[in-house]
Formats: sequence, structure tokens, C-alpha cells
Amino acid sequence: MRDCDVVVVGAGLAGLTAARELTEAGLEVRVLEARDRVGGRTLSQSVGEHPEDIVELGGQWVGPTQHEVLGLAEDFGIPTYPTHASGKNLFEDGRGQLKRFSGTIPMLQPHVMVDYGQADLRLKRLIKTVDPESPWAGEDAERLDEQSFASWIRRTAKTGTAREALTTAIRAVFSVEPADVSLLHVLFYAAAAGGWDDLLDTEGGAQQDRLAGGTQQLSVRMAEELGDRVELSTPVRSIQTDGESVLVGDLRARRVIVAIPPALAGRIEYDPPLPGMRDQLTQRMPMGTVIKCVAVYEEPFWRDDGLTGQALSLPGPAQVVFDNTPPNGSAGLIAFLEGKDARELASVGVRERREAVLRTFKRLFGERATHPVEYVDKDWSAEPYSRGCYAGVFGPGGWTGYGRWLREPVGRVHWAGTETATRWMGYMDGAIQSGRRAAAEVQTAEGAAVVDAAGAQAAQAARIITG
Amino acid sequence: MRDCDVVVVGAGLAGLTAARELTEAGLEVRVLEARDRVGGRTLSQSVGEHPEDIVELGGQWVGPTQHEVLGLAEDFGIPTYPTHASGKNLFEDGRGQLKRFSGTIPMLQPHVMVDYGQADLRLKRLIKTVDPESPWAGEDAERLDEQSFASWIRRTAKTGTAREALTTAIRAVFSVEPADVSLLHVLFYAAAAGGWDDLLDTEGGAQQDRLAGGTQQLSVRMAEELGDRVELSTPVRSIQTDGESVLVGDLRARRVIVAIPPALAGRIEYDPPLPGMRDQLTQRMPMGTVIKCVAVYEEPFWRDDGLTGQALSLPGPAQVVFDNTPPNGSAGLIAFLEGKDARELASVGVRERREAVLRTFKRLFGERATHPVEYVDKDWSAEPYSRGCYAGVFGPGGWTGYGRWLREPVGRVHWAGTETATRWMGYMDGAIQSGRRAAAEVQTAEGAAVVDAAGAQAAQAARIITG
Repeated sequence: MRDCDVVVVGAGLAGLTAARELTEAGLEVRVLEARDRVGGRTLSQSVGEHPEDIVELGGQWVGPTQHEVLGLAEDFGIPTYPTHASGKNLFEDGRGQLKRFSGTIPMLQPHVMVDYGQADLRLKRLIKTVDPESPWAGEDAERLDEQSFASWIRRTAKTGTAREALTTAIRAVFSVEPADVSLLHVLFYAAAAGGWDDLLDTEGGAQQDRLAGGTQQLSVRMAEELGDRVELSTPVRSIQTDGESVLVGDLRARRVIVAIPPALAGRIEYDPPLPGMRDQLTQRMPMGTVIKCVAVYEEPFWRDDGLTGQALSLPGPAQVVFDNTPPNGSAGLIAFLEGKDARELASVGVRERREAVLRTFKRLFGERATHPVEYVDKDWSAEPYSRGCYAGVFGPGGWTGYGRWLREPVGRVHWAGTETATRWMGYMDGAIQSGRRAAAEVQTAEGAAVVDAAGAQAAQAARIITG
Repeated sequence: MRDCDVVVVGAGLAGLTAARELTEAGLEVRVLEARDRVGGRTLSQSVGEHPEDIVELGGQWVGPTQHEVLGLAEDFGIPTYPTHASGKNLFEDGRGQLKRFSGTIPMLQPHVMVDYGQADLRLKRLIKTVDPESPWAGEDAERLDEQSFASWIRRTAKTGTAREALTTAIRAVFSVEPADVSLLHVLFYAAAAGGWDDLLDTEGGAQQDRLAGGTQQLSVRMAEELGDRVELSTPVRSIQTDGESVLVGDLRARRVIVAIPPALAGRIEYDPPLPGMRDQLTQRMPMGTVIKCVAVYEEPFWRDDGLTGQALSLPGPAQVVFDNTPPNGSAGLIAFLEGKDARELASVGVRERREAVLRTFKRLFGERATHPVEYVDKDWSAEPYSRGCYAGVFGPGGWTGYGRWLREPVGRVHWAGTETATRWMGYMDGAIQSGRRAAAEVQTAEGAAVVDAAGAQAAQAARIITG
């Protein structure tokens, strides 16, 4: 049996941040990571000689209001660079017609723009009514939570194209179908990000910038600092607690921070078992479904045609496409297969997926797109220690039924991970915030324990004196 | 390492039925059960001297079209008896007014009856459009699945009382809130039961009869037959498979049947890992939330007042109440805390729950109801090897997104449990059907394997001869 103060389960951004904070506070920490690498849902894969010539198979973007992740990048001297956006974006409508446009939303027929604009306005008004600290507590929470976003779309948007645009937005942001999330979850998520446009936009929004060398570096650097406090290839299967301590594998600690998604946290065996409501929460926050696909080319040839490489394709299956060429790296296009498309293409081989993606690229960028020098993709639902991306989502009834148990510690067990964040939930930024919050929680609890112990000693001393 | 033909995980009705079928077919079977008892979500607790003087803390009713469970009871010579129903039922409306009524639905004000009647009619028309074998494949499946039942209620019923009545019906049948289930799931569930009234009714429906001595006996008797093939207190944490065999604990078999709810099946570690879509399915079928409460009395005193003991209370929290006195047992009333009420009362102690339930009983049956000789309750969400009851439910998007993976075997791993049934899903009857289906699947697969092996031998013989 090895002793320490705090065990952290999971060496993603949340767990490593918590470990870093607690180590700085003078506590002895151990981080147990199931995989043979750190970084969780961030992952770089080398595709060339240059150290920055990588493709990112996980979370890759940072936005201007994501102060946690930007601050961490600054700590490590990692510069950001803007997502390539010079030129025109492409929009492929339901009938396969291509249009060039600038900004986030393509110009559509006037009656569609009015329809979309009204839905957008209503959504933004509703977002302002939700407090991301406690979305379940608002006056209209039950009403907003009882309906799926699909029901809201159907009631609010009248034109097929506006409905499709909203559906594509939900897929792009949550990697699920509009049926799978409650209206309240969408409102919460946007409120936690500062607004709806903050989620969708490249410039000024969540897709604005990237980190030179990739985002996984943030975790790699934190893990380097933590040294042998991080133990890889060590999946945690069970957590035992008693009044005094926590047993995780061969480690005995005072507290544990479980920094993995709720859906996976529910798979650990707890002794004593978790309270029913905490367990049922873990049954109700499924992970989104996304396959990230990367095609590497000799040249970013689309730029010669005056295109950014960004595209929105309603026929898909690659509905959302970006130029992903890093400053010192190989030219590349990425596509996201999300929700329904990801479900269909998760069950076929990589060859069939490659063909499906390149078929979309060909329609968008022409024949040259069909000859990448390399193609890789990553189905996050198949990863045993993620089981989906980008994040856990609440369907109807989830927030109002179970939200209050999301961060609530169970005795000596604390919860972190981006799903528990109140700012930029689902993003790297939220993961870091959650790690800080859990570390603070542990420090407060341990501080209180120290005060309690001191109080007990003082009381005993008083008894001895007054005897 | 011990060898056998088939390992079954879970000694509930599904697992034991599968084991029984396979044993009868001459296969060597082992059933591994996590608890120290068989019966899963059926559970008897003794409250007196007589062997039939028990309270049932789990599934207890059988209906006239539940041929699987009635057949099994007949196999073991276990007689049925009717749920006590002579006298009048009670209805407590939202303002605490009591009304006596007969049948399933109390007589309400005419405009409410018209409103409820229209909703009821629409629901029944929709139910007929759903094929319980493949609810995801219907023409309107996406439309029916994209909305929560709460959205459907709000759109369909106009009066507050009709909405409350439909909400109470959903709680009583699914032990979740109407927000938590999709319209398609409700339609599927009713279609699988033969109709909406079949779910709700006592006479002619799912609550018509009980088994003398309790339903857990069915599992106890099957386990007795199976003898030492059933191993208790043996939780399965991991399943390894290769092209040839399955390893479960120290058992090596040709196939495994996992006969536990999807939400729990997802907690087992599979090697190789399950395909992404099968895993994501297990994240999307959360268990309902119910606490079953039993008060035992000296006398069934409510009968003297001309009451059946059945009651429907809108203020609750004990919204659904039944006389549960067995022919040779102690007088008793049972109440179900379901959905929201169960979530609230799961977090308090049994004392507070007892008070809450007896407060409802007092309003319904008077002062005498507050002095039971015994009170017991069972919070199924707190049970580590159930984590909720009555069954797993699909929220919006679940059936259309993941339904097709519900029964689909993964290599040598087969799935059973009432959640996989196509007749009376969620009921004991469905559990038994699913056990039979999984057993047949295994036999077919093994038969094919035998044919394959014979074919290979024949081909080899032919090669030798023609060689």
C-alpha cells in the first residue's frame, strides 16, 4: 500500500490541472491514467519531419474568451495562430448547389433568412434566461427541459432550410442529433460559452485559434511537470472509501478526484456503492458521436481557388469541413462526421469512410481533393476510455432531474471533467476550470478537516486542563 | 480454467430461462450472478410465519396475455390469484378532493373526460403504427422519436387534469417523468404489451393477477433445477473473447449471454472492446426510478369502508396505491414513489419516506393507515446490480439512433434481459421471452458452427480423396 494525499483518476486536462493545483498547494498527488498517454480527448498524430507537422485528432480550437486554456498555453509559452480564414467559405445546399460566402452563415433566400433570423433571435433571448451555475433552478427550467431541441426547431423554424441549418449547427456543436438534447441543455451550453455565436463562430468564437504544435501539448507539459506522479496504463476499476481514506488500486489517499466523463465514471465500482441518484446521473449523460477525418495534401490547393477550405455541406456526410494546415506543417482538410452520419459510418471500415469523405471533398473542392497523400480518422466512440466526443450531453429531463448531482461530492469522492464545468462546458477550457474547482473543493475540505482535527485536539486539551 | 459451452451473466428471469433452455438442449451452462440470491428485479421478503406471508419488493403482477410468465408458473405448479379489486377505488385530485370510482380511470368533469378521451384515442391510433420488432424502421419513426412524451402531452391534451392524468400514467408504467421518454418509446412499449389499456388496467391488464408465494419463486425454482450450474455472489467484471472462445472469470466457454440491463452491461470490461455503437447504446437506456413502499397492517381495514385499497393520488408522493394482501398473508398496502417523487425521496432516510407515504395513506384511508405493524421499502436505484427499475427506457432519439444494436450479438456475446424483448418489454414476461430468444440464437450459431466444422472436414476428406 502506497500513501498519498489525493488520487486523481484521468490525465486529461481536468485531472492534470487538478493535480497541478494540489501539488502547488503542497499536497502529495498521484494521477492514474488508463491509456498509455496523457491528454484525454486531445490527441496529436505526427505526419511529417517537423515537430509541428501534426494532425490533431481531438479538440483543437481555442476561442478568445477561453481564458483558462489561453492562460495555460501562455504558462507554457505555446503560441496561438488563427484558423485559416482568408478567402470564401463554401455552402452546399440540399440539392447539391454550391455557394460561396463569408462569415458563419451563408446568405440564403430572403424568406429563409427571416425565418432563421427569428429562430436565432428567440434562441438568444432564451439563452439569457439560463444561469449556467444551476440551469435546473430557473423559473422555466422544467418547461425548457421537457422538450428536445428537435421539437423546438419544428415549432420555431418554418422553412426546411432553416430547420436543416439549425440541425447542422447542433450536430457541429454537440455531435448528436437535435432529438438527443433538450432545449435546456442547448441553452445552458451557449450560456456557459457566453452566447450562441461564441459556439458557432470562427472569428471571435470557439473556432478562432489553434495552438502551435497542437493542444495535446498542454497535457504533455503538465504531465512533465508532475513527473512520476502521473502513472500511465493504469485503468481504475474500483474505488473504496471509508470515513478516513480512499483506496484506489494500491494507493491510499485522503480524497479522490474522478476526472473522467460521467458516463465512464459510472463504470467504476464504488465501495460503498454510490447513492442511487449519482449513479442514475451517470446513466443519463451519454457521449456525443463524432468521427474526425483528416486528409493530408501536397498543397493547400483550394486556397488557389480563393477558398478558405471551410465548408458547410447539407448532403454530407462530411457536413463540416475546415482547412487544417498548420503554419509549419502539411496541407490538410478536416471533416467531422457527426451524430447520425457518425453512427452510420462507425460501423463500416476506414476505407469506406475515406471514400465517403473524399466524395464530399470532391463536390466541394474538385478532383484534386480525391488524391490525398494521407488519410486518417478517429472514431471516438470506439475508444474504450472516451466512448464518444465531444462531451456528455443531457437529453430532455436530464438537467432538471439530475443536474444537481453533477458536481456534488460523495464523501471523499470529488468530480471533475469538462462535463462539470460552468464556463465552456464541453471544451478544453471547461475541463481546466473543472480541475481547478475540484482542487479547490479538496483543499477546502482538507482545510476543514485540519480545523476539525485542531478543534478536537483543543477540546481534548481543554478537558485535560479542566479535568 | 473451467470449460463449459455457454456462460450466462445474471440469474434473473432472462438469464435463468436461457440457461434452462440450453441445458435442456444438452449444452453445459454456467450462470454467474453478482448477488447472493437469484431473481433480479423480483424479490420476496418474509413478514410472517406462513411461507406465503411475504411482501414483494419487486415485480409482482402478471396479466392475462403474458403467456411466457403464465406458462412458467404453470410449469412449476404455482397458482395465480386476482389482485384484490372488490369495492371502490379512490382518486385524490390536485386540490385534495377524494372521489370513489370503478375501473382504471376516475370519472372527471365532462370537458376533462372529452380532452382525455381524445388524447387516449390519438395515442391508441399511433400505437397501431409501431412494429415492436423494429420500432426504428417505421415510416414515421424519426418524427415520433424526436419528441419527448411531455411535448406530446402538452400538444395533445388541453386541460391541466388530463395532462396530470397522462403524466401519472407515464410515471406508473415507466417510473420516469414524461420528459424522459420519447413518444416512440411509449408507443413501442404499449405495442409490445398489446395495447395502452393492457399496460394500465388491473382487470384484463398487466396488474390483473399475482402468483401465490410471490414471483421470485419462478427464479428460485429454475435455479433449483439448474443446481450448481448457478454460482451466486460472482459479479462479472470482464469478458474476453477471441475467434474460438469466451473467457469469463475462470470459465472458458464458446459463447456468453449477458442477461442484465444495457446500462449495467456497459459497465463490464470487454476485450476486445465493444464496437462504438453498442457501447453508446448502453449509455442511452437509463433505468427508471422507483421506490416500492409496503405497509403491513393487522387488518385490511379499508375493505370495511367498501374500498379496494387501490388509489390514484395526484398530490402524492404516493401516487399509485394497491391493496397487496395475499390470500394467506398479512394485510398490506403498497405505494410506488416514481420518477420525480422517487428522486426526491431517494436522498432522505427511510423514516422520512415512511412518513411521506403514511401521510398520503392517511388522506386516502384515514387515521388507521398511520399505524402499520411494519413498514419496508426498496429503492431500486440504490441496488448496485439493478441501479433502477422497472426497466431501461429510451429518451428522444434513442430508438431511431441505437435501437438496431439492442439485440445484435457482438461476435460470441449475446444479449438478453427484458429490455431486449419484443413482447411485454420491461415486464417479467419480456425477460422470459428474451431468455428464450437468446438461447435460440446461441443454438443456431452453434449449430452453424457444427455444420461449418463438418463442412471443413468433408472438404478436407474430399481433398485427401481427390488429392
